[in-house]
Order: sequence, then structure tokens, then C-alpha cells
Amino acid sequence: MTAAAAAWDRFSDLYLTHDELGISVDVSRVKFEVADLEALIPKMNDALTAMQKLEAGAIANPDEQRMVGHYWLRAAEMAPDPNLSAAIVQTETAIRQFAERVHSGQLEGSAGKFRNLVVVGIGGSALGPQFVAQALGKSGDAMKVHFIDNTDPRGIDDVLASLKGELGRTLVVVVSKSGGTPETRNGMLEVQRAFSAGGLPFHRHAVAITQFGSKLHATAVDEKWIEVFPMWDWVGGRTSVMSAVGLLPMALQGLDTAGFLKGAAQMDEWTRLLEPLRNPASLLALMWYQATGGKGLKDMVVLPYKDRLLLFSRYLQQLVMESLGKEFDRQGNKVEQGIAVYGNKGSTDQHAYVQQLRDGVPNFFVTFVRVLTDRDGPSLEVEPGVTSGDYLDGLLLGTREALAEKGRDTITLTLREVTPSAVGALIALYERTVGLYAELIDINAYHQPGVEAGKKAAAGMLALQQRLVAELNESPRSAAELADAIGEPNRVEAAFQILTHLSANPDRGVLCEAMDSPSATRFRAG
Amino acid sequence: MTAAAAAWDRFSDLYLTHDELGISVDVSRVKFEVADLEALIPKMNDALTAMQKLEAGAIANPDEQRMVGHYWLRAAEMAPDPNLSAAIVQTETAIRQFAERVHSGQLEGSAGKFRNLVVVGIGGSALGPQFVAQALGKSGDAMKVHFIDNTDPRGIDDVLASLKGELGRTLVVVVSKSGGTPETRNGMLEVQRAFSAGGLPFHRHAVAITQFGSKLHATAVDEKWIEVFPMWDWVGGRTSVMSAVGLLPMALQGLDTAGFLKGAAQMDEWTRLLEPLRNPASLLALMWYQATGGKGLKDMVVLPYKDRLLLFSRYLQQLVMESLGKEFDRQGNKVEQGIAVYGNKGSTDQHAYVQQLRDGVPNFFVTFVRVLTDRDGPSLEVEPGVTSGDYLDGLLLGTREALAEKGRDTITLTLREVTPSAVGALIALYERTVGLYAELIDINAYHQPGVEAGKKAAAGMLALQQRLVAELNESPRSAAELADAIGEPNRVEAAFQILTHLSANPDRGVLCEAMDSPSATRFRAG
Repeated sequence: MTAAAAAWDRFSDLYLTHDELGISVDVSRVKFEVADLEALIPKMNDALTAMQKLEAGAIANPDEQRMVGHYWLRAAEMAPDPNLSAAIVQTETAIRQFAERVHSGQLEGSAGKFRNLVVVGIGGSALGPQFVAQALGKSGDAMKVHFIDNTDPRGIDDVLASLKGELGRTLVVVVSKSGGTPETRNGMLEVQRAFSAGGLPFHRHAVAITQFGSKLHATAVDEKWIEVFPMWDWVGGRTSVMSAVGLLPMALQGLDTAGFLKGAAQMDEWTRLLEPLRNPASLLALMWYQATGGKGLKDMVVLPYKDRLLLFSRYLQQLVMESLGKEFDRQGNKVEQGIAVYGNKGSTDQHAYVQQLRDGVPNFFVTFVRVLTDRDGPSLEVEPGVTSGDYLDGLLLGTREALAEKGRDTITLTLREVTPSAVGALIALYERTVGLYAELIDINAYHQPGVEAGKKAAAGMLALQQRLVAELNESPRSAAELADAIGEPNRVEAAFQILTHLSANPDRGVLCEAMDSPSATRFRAG
Repeated sequence: MTAAAAAWDRFSDLYLTHDELGISVDVSRVKFEVADLEALIPKMNDALTAMQKLEAGAIANPDEQRMVGHYWLRAAEMAPDPNLSAAIVQTETAIRQFAERVHSGQLEGSAGKFRNLVVVGIGGSALGPQFVAQALGKSGDAMKVHFIDNTDPRGIDDVLASLKGELGRTLVVVVSKSGGTPETRNGMLEVQRAFSAGGLPFHRHAVAITQFGSKLHATAVDEKWIEVFPMWDWVGGRTSVMSAVGLLPMALQGLDTAGFLKGAAQMDEWTRLLEPLRNPASLLALMWYQATGGKGLKDMVVLPYKDRLLLFSRYLQQLVMESLGKEFDRQGNKVEQGIAVYGNKGSTDQHAYVQQLRDGVPNFFVTFVRVLTDRDGPSLEVEPGVTSGDYLDGLLLGTREALAEKGRDTITLTLREVTPSAVGALIALYERTVGLYAELIDINAYHQPGVEAGKKAAAGMLALQQRLVAELNESPRSAAELADAIGEPNRVEAAFQILTHLSANPDRGVLCEAMDSPSATRFRAG
């Protein structure tokens, strides 16, 4: 048999496809023999069993004593408690009805029918909605969606400036599971101020998505916001796009939430298959293990050849890296796990960094995402018999060849079309792949203990700022002198950084002299 | 001396700052002692000398027999030939005058004053302009800028849909150095068709930026486009943002090109300093070497804490990875060099993958980009004495601490403000850092030989497509049968992929039966 015939057989044998979803998975270009996987298969069978327990309501996130229920969001009947099932169904219905009231104008803003939507949220409360809005949105949607996903004052001002004169027809959805995320709280307060400044009643424009009983819930009730939609403790932020967090913005934008959920449910069914090499999620997880040595030795480069899927790699950065990037395994051994994810879109990235992928450091594997349908309607021929879409697909296939020639591993996912169903299915595929891979490497994929350290250190910085500002007077003093004066001689550098920031903002009352060297720099009130 | 006092001394000693540019560089949180660098310093001195020769017009890109002249774009008098100096100055003047004619309405579209700009370009012809447009643009700019940076039909349709009814007031700038980039040619043809479909004369809306004598140049002249601006062979695509490629879109958008160029020129002056530890570009290059072992052993995570700098990491992906990602060094040794770059923005990414950075695989170093000025005008207090901007800065400083605790290396660049000058300076800083680092590892940073392979393979796919389509008839045949029929028995998989793509698009006349297994799938004309 020739090498090409062997490659075709390998491709055909390993190929998985789901006709109704229009999704197929090809791992033939990852270097492995089925025999190599033998040691992993028993582990994968255990992982599939663990996933069954998780779906049945086990405490799969023991550190936080929580169930992991995002699979129920698209199959409410699977939830282990009829109250949960009912809550899921009721929330979906409430979202659909709410969007109808907004679209019909029955519910309107202080200046008329709502036509703009601002989602205030960060991390899991933004990345999913952003990915979906871009993948499925189009000009002419029911509402134009904007995101405030940071505590950057200039960034917030830019979003608000783009809504100049439109606030009276703008609906604001504030999303925070805990209700205590400071970036989101700050974004909400800044938006609220813009409404006040325009003489508009914020509460008539505001909706919250949060856990019942949270601070945000209390605010929304106190201030008589239009509505509060629930988040649940058994849905993690990075898997919340099929809860109200993702569904409400989608429905308001006019996108097909039912199709989105159905695609995910179909993918869930497919990925429950107990045959590790015929289940696309377990196959992908095995490939991740094979490509990265089960230790994150290689980066995952995600290259969708479709503009609408540009944000998919950002979405996966969170889903994969926050889930897998853990210091300890579940036995308490220090393992420093994870897989780094990056990528934008092809063929654009071929003109950016594919040079390095082909010729440079071989520290990655590629996942191509291919979309077969080029556009609605017929295409122009840019050369006789050739369209722009033929070029796009040819460039993907050509790059896949060029990487194979150099021994770089590639996986190819093919979608028939970027539909709500396909996007839902894609998300579901990766959610389960991450879960199964986490079982293989024995880590808790559902907590994020490392995020706390940065938050605590930030709170420490703000507390230090307050004390420094209180200490400042009209005499210029160095960072070292000021740190000493407040009894924090070990925090000179932090004092310097904080005061430098304040002094760059004229409204903060801090003056700075002699910037050439940090130790020579003096600060005073003024 | 306490550890904190030693850290403060180290911070102060290593700190570099440029008061007029408002930029400082801190490498104190990279693990190294100055003594560790001793072996590298002579190499860096050689690199600085090589850079002097490059700036004087040496053939620094020997594989393509080209000078490397992007530094002259902001210091025309340095160009080694007065004709080049004159061309640089004349082009800048022509761009300024052209933008004035557009803004004043002296030059207008077929439906009136131009208010929309579509830039058609990819890679170096898009990433720089996109980064600058987002970093410096605001609502209310002279023109609203759109980019077509791919050959994705749906992506092109989406841009055109957002311009519905506006084409008559839209200026199209087509950017291709060689004039032969197929993605750009396709984008141009698609846009041209949209103008024709609307009964609008494309040539009255079209401007080219290209090398004189290119195919695109000929098209523009033949069709009587409004104007052609030059590209030169001594400017590489990834360093072209200060040529017409970047300056024309900036000027049309209404941004300050002179400030942008001046900032770059000032950074160039600073980074010509022949003291390796006082020159910020050579200091950064030494840190890259230190952090990555001079072999790309770690990824560069770029985290600007400012929404407007979101695209900086994408810009750097190209600049760094396409420049450094090389198979062979200049002596012909196989080295597989490069540094992988990724990142989006803080504090948003803290809610995505900073979990992995702190706890997971330690395969990276971080570059924070900090911006001191929060916004125009005073800030709301979100808590007594605390603003949204204090949170943003506190989160950066806190994360920097949290990463240091775990021994992760971080670099911090601080900008006083995101101005045209600062953005120009930032780009210039990285251009020179890449050039100096390339000298340290002895590679040619100015060519991209690996990009060709993917292009050639793509062309092969399109040629194969033509033959397959010609072979199809009404009898269903498998990919293997069709590949055999055209005498390409080794290209069965490629045939399958190509025909699958065509059959998903109803206008292409290819029907597909039985999709379950690739070998069972049959294709026919229809």
C-alpha cells in the first residue's frame, strides 16, 4: 500500500461525523497509533463513567462542594431534582417571553422601543455571549449588542460614546453570578451615572442576571429594576453560556436560542457514547493527551477559517486554561497542569504567525475549524471556476498539508455551516472534552483557586492607596518616606506604583516631582 | 537589607524611563542577575552595531537581497539615498493632502462626502492599521473604518451589509505590497461587485497602496482609480504601519500621523543607545533571551490593561512570530527558533486564563502594559476614594504580585497615556527589540520562507479542484474513483475534502451522497 493510500485509510477509519449536526472530527494528522492509546483507554472508560456520575448530580467540584450541572441546561429532564428541571425550563420560557415583550415594544425604554443592548459582565459572563453574538449576529438584528467587560474607564467611556443620544432606547443587562465581581459592579455604576447624567431613570432600563440572594439581586430589587434572571451555583461561569447569561443576550439580539440548545443537546448525546474512539469528545481528549504528553507540553493553536468564529479561541482560552491550569491534582500532588490556547482566524493568521508554526519552535498542535458553506446565495467567480470561498478552503487544506510535511500535529473540525445549532454543539463538544481530559490527568476542572490570589493582592493595593492618600500633605516625599510614614516599609515599590498612577490623573489630587528615577521621585498632595 | 528593600533597589536600578514619551520599562521581576548577562553583552554590542549598519542601508535581508528601511519612515533624512528620503517625505505630504481633500468634501463619492472607509488587506496590510485604528479611534472620527482582512465570503458579506445604503459615500483602500496576494485580490473583486450591483462606479471610490509596477498598480491605472500610494521593497509587510499602509487609513480616520511618527522617531533615538542595559530595546531583547533560553522555550503573554490596546498582542504575534519563527539560522544550522505570543487584555483575562498562569504550566513570561491615565476628565468614585481606574491598576499590580509569588517572570511597560506618540513609540520599541533579539540568535528577521509552502499547497488544491470538477458527471463516484480518473491516485483525501466543500454550496453544481464514511461517500455533477 502506498503512503497516500495508507493516509486515506487512516483518515477514513478515524473520521467521525454527525450528519444532522453537520459536524465531523478528523484526528488522522496527529501522530499516534491506536495501539499507543491502549494504556489510556481504561482511564478514558473511567472518565466516561465519572462523567455519567457528574451528569447524574455527583459533587464533581468537591473543593466548592458543588454539583456541575451545565449539561442539564440543554436537557432539563436530566437534572437530579425536579425543582432544578423546573427552574431551567421556567427560566428559558421567561427569557423568550421577555425578549418578545422587548421586541414588540410592549416593554420599552424611557425614549421608546429598545434597540440597543449593553451587557455588563466579565470572564464567563462576557466571553460566551460575545462569541455567540459575533458568530451568529448580523446587521439588522433585533438589537445591537455592546459589551462592557472590564473596569477600564476609557473603555467604558468609548462604549457609552458609541451610544450617544441612544441611552433612552438602551437596555442594560448586568451579569454577575456572585454579584460581587468588582469590574462588573464598577461598569454598572459607570453606566448608571451616564443614565443619571442624561436625566434617564436607570431602573427602567436595567436587568440583572445573578444568584438569588446576591448583592446584585438586592440592588436590583431595591432599585426596582425591570427584571432579575437567575444564575445557579451548579453552573460555573465558564460554562454558563447556556444559562440566562448567554440565552438572554441571544434572545434579545433575536438569535435562535432553541436551536442553540438543541445543537448542544445533540452533541451531548453523541459525546455520551461509551466507545472512546467513536466518541468525538473522548477522541479529542485522547489527542490532547497524546499531543501534549498529558502535561501541557504543547500549546493548542485554534484556527477557525471563518471570520465569524474569530472569538472561538478566546472562548476556549477560558474554558480550557481556567479548567485545566491547576497546581495540584485531586490527590494533592503538585502537577502544574494546563494547556495554553491561542489563535485568531485563517487565512488571516497565515499572514501573521503561520511562518513560525511551520518553521519555528515545534511547541504546539493546531486545531483547524473548517466551515463548508461559504455564504448565503451564489458566489462570484474570482477566476474561472474559482470563488473566494474556494481560496479560503484551499488555504486551510494547503496549510494543513504544509504543517503535516513538517511533522506538526493537526486536528480538523468541520462544520457544515455556522448555525445556532452548530455553535451550541461546538461549545458542548469542548465542554465535555475538557471534562474528560481533566479526568485523564486527575484534576478538578471546575474550580479556580489561583484567581483569588490576584484579587486579594488587588484589594491590598486599594487599601494601601487609601492610607497613602491620607498620609500625603504639601511636603514632597519619596515613596520610601511615605511607605515608612504609614508603617509599611516593605511596600515601597507598591507605594511608588500607586502614587504614579494617581498623579497621572489630575482629578486625584496627587502631584509628582522628578520622574527620572523612582527613588528620586517625590509625591505630595495638590 | 530586607528582601523588600533589595527588591526596591533592584526595581530602581533597572528602571528605564523617557519623560517626554511618557514610557517606562521595568524588568526587575524577571529572574536574572546582571552578572548572568555578561556572556550576552558582547553579543548585544555586536547586535547594536549590526543595527547601525541596517539603518545605514546594509542588505540586512540577504535572502531577498533587500535593505530593511522601516526606521527611515520616521526619519527620512537617515535613508541612504536622497531619492528615498524624498519619496518618504512626498508620500507623507501626499497622504495628508489627500485626507484633507476627502475631509473637506473636495474629493467625494458618487453619493456625496466620504464618511466610511473600507481597508482591504491582510497580514501586515491589516494588523497595524487595525491596531492603530482601535487604539486611537473614537466615535465621531472623520471616517468610520472597516476592514476586509480575509477571503471569507461570509465575512465580506457581513462588512458589506454593515455598509448597506452607504457605498456611495464609502472610500475603499486596497493594500497589497506585491499586488498579488489572493485574499486581497478576492476582497477587492467582491467589493467591486457590490459597487456594480449598486450601480456605482467603483473607480471613483478606489485607492491602491502597492509597489509601483505591481498587478494592482496596473489595475488601478487601467481603471482610473482615484489615487495610488507607494509601497517600497525595503519595507516589510509586518513593519509597514508607518508607510502609506498605516498612515493613509490613520489620516483618513482623522488621527494624528505626525505625532505617531514623532513618537516612533523618539523611541528610535532612545533605542540607539549603545549601553545594553540602559537601552530599552536591548534590555527587552536580553530579557526575552533570559526568559526563553534564547530558544523560545517560553511563550510571551502580552497583557495590556486597557481596552484600546486589545489588538496589541495580535500585532505582536505577527511582528515577533513571523520575524523570529525560523527553521535555520544565518549559518544554515537547523534551529527551529521563535517565541509564541498571545494575550488579550486585563483585567478581563484575569477572569479567563490567569488561573493557568498562576497555578498551571510555567511555560511563559508575561509582559504587562500599564496605562496611567484613566480617561479624559474626572472619574466617578465607585467606593469612597476609589475609582474604576484604581481597580484596573490595582488588579494589574495585584496580579503582578501574585505571579511573582509563584516565580513567574513578568515585564511591565508603563505608558502615561495611549496617544499617537505613545503608540508609535510602542511599535518602534518592539520593532527594534525583535531586530536585536534576532541578532542574538543569529537569524534573518526580515524574510518569511515558511509562508510560501502553504500558499503553494493551496494553489495545488485549487488546480486539483478544477480537474475534479471537469471530471464529474452524472454517475456517482467515490473520491478514490475520481482521483484515479484524473490520474491522481495519491490525492484521494484532498479530492474528498475539495468535493465536500463544493457540495455544501448549492451554486457549485456538485452533489454528494452518503456522508457517513468518507470512503462510502459518492459525488456527482448536478
